[in-house]
Amino acid sequence: MTLYENLAIRLREHIELGFYKPGDKLPSVRQLAKEHGVSISTVQEAYRQLEQELLVEARPKSGYFVSAQKQDNLPSISRPPQRPLEVSQWEEVLNMLMIRSRTDAVQLQHAMPDMKAPTLKPLLKDLTKQDPEIGLGYSDIRGTEELRTQLCRLAVASGCQLHPDDLVITSGCQEALSVCLRAVTEPGDIIAIESPSFYGSMQAIKAANLKAMEIPTHPGTGISLEALELALDQWPIKAIFVTPTCNNPIGYTMPEDKKEQLYRLAQSYDITIIEDDIYGDISFQFPRPKTIKSFDTDGRVLLCSSFSKSIAPGMRVGWIAPGRYRDKVTHIKYVSSSMCPVMPQLAVAKFIRLGGYAKHIRQMRQNYEKQRDQLLKAIKTYFPKDTRVSFPDGSFILWVELNQHIDSMKLMKKCREHGVGFAPGPLFSATGKYRNCFRLNYSEQSSEKREWAIKSLGEVINTFQPQES
Amino acid sequence: MTLYENLAIRLREHIELGFYKPGDKLPSVRQLAKEHGVSISTVQEAYRQLEQELLVEARPKSGYFVSAQKQDNLPSISRPPQRPLEVSQWEEVLNMLMIRSRTDAVQLQHAMPDMKAPTLKPLLKDLTKQDPEIGLGYSDIRGTEELRTQLCRLAVASGCQLHPDDLVITSGCQEALSVCLRAVTEPGDIIAIESPSFYGSMQAIKAANLKAMEIPTHPGTGISLEALELALDQWPIKAIFVTPTCNNPIGYTMPEDKKEQLYRLAQSYDITIIEDDIYGDISFQFPRPKTIKSFDTDGRVLLCSSFSKSIAPGMRVGWIAPGRYRDKVTHIKYVSSSMCPVMPQLAVAKFIRLGGYAKHIRQMRQNYEKQRDQLLKAIKTYFPKDTRVSFPDGSFILWVELNQHIDSMKLMKKCREHGVGFAPGPLFSATGKYRNCFRLNYSEQSSEKREWAIKSLGEVINTFQPQES
Ligand SMILES: Cc1ncc(COP(=O)(O)O)c(C=O)c1O
Ligand SMILES: Cc1ncc(COP(=O)(O)O)c(C=O)c1O
Repeated sequence: MTLYENLAIRLREHIELGFYKPGDKLPSVRQLAKEHGVSISTVQEAYRQLEQELLVEARPKSGYFVSAQKQDNLPSISRPPQRPLEVSQWEEVLNMLMIRSRTDAVQLQHAMPDMKAPTLKPLLKDLTKQDPEIGLGYSDIRGTEELRTQLCRLAVASGCQLHPDDLVITSGCQEALSVCLRAVTEPGDIIAIESPSFYGSMQAIKAANLKAMEIPTHPGTGISLEALELALDQWPIKAIFVTPTCNNPIGYTMPEDKKEQLYRLAQSYDITIIEDDIYGDISFQFPRPKTIKSFDTDGRVLLCSSFSKSIAPGMRVGWIAPGRYRDKVTHIKYVSSSMCPVMPQLAVAKFIRLGGYAKHIRQMRQNYEKQRDQLLKAIKTYFPKDTRVSFPDGSFILWVELNQHIDSMKLMKKCREHGVGFAPGPLFSATGKYRNCFRLNYSEQSSEKREWAIKSLGEVINTFQPQES
Repeated sequence: MTLYENLAIRLREHIELGFYKPGDKLPSVRQLAKEHGVSISTVQEAYRQLEQELLVEARPKSGYFVSAQKQDNLPSISRPPQRPLEVSQWEEVLNMLMIRSRTDAVQLQHAMPDMKAPTLKPLLKDLTKQDPEIGLGYSDIRGTEELRTQLCRLAVASGCQLHPDDLVITSGCQEALSVCLRAVTEPGDIIAIESPSFYGSMQAIKAANLKAMEIPTHPGTGISLEALELALDQWPIKAIFVTPTCNNPIGYTMPEDKKEQLYRLAQSYDITIIEDDIYGDISFQFPRPKTIKSFDTDGRVLLCSSFSKSIAPGMRVGWIAPGRYRDKVTHIKYVSSSMCPVMPQLAVAKFIRLGGYAKHIRQMRQNYEKQRDQLLKAIKTYFPKDTRVSFPDGSFILWVELNQHIDSMKLMKKCREHGVGFAPGPLFSATGKYRNCFRLNYSEQSSEKREWAIKSLGEVINTFQPQES
């Protein structure tokens, strides 16, 4: 990490945390150089980098200013309670998981990909063409070598050099993260997480008898490193759990240098990072963003992923690159569910090997990006003016923040009657915050259905909206 | 539990623990009646029951005597250390799991069923005939209703009345027992187990930060209730974990009244029972033995099972009947691996519904019983005279106890060179005991291969045998 990168990160954080607001003048180059004891050119380099990221603008003769945001109605930076807490909300999560929706309803609550895409056909055909006898016995508890080999090939795109022996196959990403949590902690330990966070990982924290420390998170660039460092100073945090690429539920991707900085922070406090990369392959950037794991030189990052978002969740094929925790991870994976079924692994391995997977995700990326824009447009059209909404640069979900007087749990009941489902905000908080938020899916529905659903949602929201004077 | 049943249990225990040896005269009816403050007819009823079990014999005019055992060379009653201990032996287990055996070797180490049986054909055909699209999405985290309904039908044979809502589908029995352990304990708790015990359950105890309290176990009738009661008096035991029907590794089935007595014991100490019934359907008795769960009136028994032994482990279809722990079990199952793949569940449900499963296990029971007898005969022929061996009344594995000077870990290395694998005894102990024991499988091999393997094993064992004078 060079001096200017370091400075850029600090400046970015100050902007993200709102110390400088869009349009504000930033300190002069001279002033910053003096303050930080660095050279003028270092400061200039830092500002140039932030310019490239469209975070600041240079105005000739007047200096640097905070840009008007890429999207001017991003949700606010989260401000969770600054202490470790037990995770609640299981009942709410269960309720959502158990909903038997009306078949005529538009279900925007699930994080399920489009599974009707023609690019999936070769995989599906192959699944039924296999000889079922090859999958009958017990097999390698780490998963089939064929699949682990293909995963190593895929990992190159995210900046990782892995060996098949560095991987353990799991029943989806959920098992991966649950196993990793148990592998790196003792009961009672504290885990730092983004806020909001995926409910499945928070419930895994709860089930492993751990506490969650939610860290303020920027809707465009992810977890606040300053807030995280503060928390690391104050609490005996054992591990950091993040979904830094196409985050669920918000959709942001942490900039690469911020990922590296997060890794350095973990190094300097000698703690581990569990990185959930489940949406990484359907980032709209090409080549896809690097993982934190790609910076890992001492094995402290445990990467978790699965094909649940890039292919289909029903495959239940996930994996862990456990770094230095391989032996512990193998033990806990074995006791958790022994080995995984062989046939889906072989089918996926072949799908990757023959190029079908690359073709499929290329198509999906294009579709989802278009569908995101359609959804954003519909929200702008039908939702109240004060609605804030995230701008995912990958995945097929986004995060909506309504007027803070609106209760998404009540809204959900009402909307269900109208035949539209969504995932209410409190599921994504350890303590039931984000009551005025919810998550929407834009992967599955036709654009007409989606528009209809957003229109209906908008109408219901309007009946909840406080009267403006 | 009537008075005479109670008395029968105490007498049986005294015989099992060796207070009375085969051939010993037992106390007179009059004497026992006085000692226990019960009527003469109660004692007579108790003796009659033990007679039926072939445990005692009445000799006209002389009273009751302990029978010569059904099989006179059963392994000894186990005598594990009488205190809670951490489970070790993971490296040894991993070594066995990771063996890449020579393909020409006879593998007697796995607990895998015969998967070449023609009665499996309808299931296999059905697996490939399914439309793969039905299995793509997320589905009910408790498993498909179709399968849960069929499992309720099967449960009737083991004496249980269950509702589909009382069941949670898991990735095999390993996930079932791992989830149950976590659902009923806090880290640091003590679990009472049989000794020897299946290594997968012991490693799950280890991974859940629990301690194992091994209880002396009789090779014909299972865990000693007297020793268990003593342990319950002395230690804050949280749950009892048993495989009482066709036990792995020994093969015994606890008599039905002893199962009920175990349940009453759990009631009186207000603790839970985790019952592993994975081999229950391939008991040689017909109708199959009742489960402990069948006596459960207050929901304190968590039944775990899977089709890994009755169909094939690669299906990874298991389940839990969690009783009063349903909510906790559902939570932990969700965080452990989210839902299970749908297609194997539907195929198995159909296999049961159309009668294919009943037909299959009927055939398997017959085959395995015949194969057991072949194996016992081969052992008698080729192993040293002082070999002791269990007499499984179900399943396809048995337990061999050699002269105590023989080390099965060393033996294993030697035998592998000769192309024969087995599961060494220390894997089945929390602390690496049973070094002179091992487990053999008799499900898969042709009878010629099996005989050849036992002959080779016998030859190697003979080179280890201490010289007799
Ligand atoms: C961020 C994240 N991690 C993990 C999971 C669980 O994935 P899987 O279905 O592969 O277990 C999800 C699914 O919603 C997710 O969004
Ligand atoms: C007693 C017992 N319980 C559980 C298991 C694990 O079964 P599954 O393969 O269904 O996870 C086994 C497998 O050997 C077993 O013998």
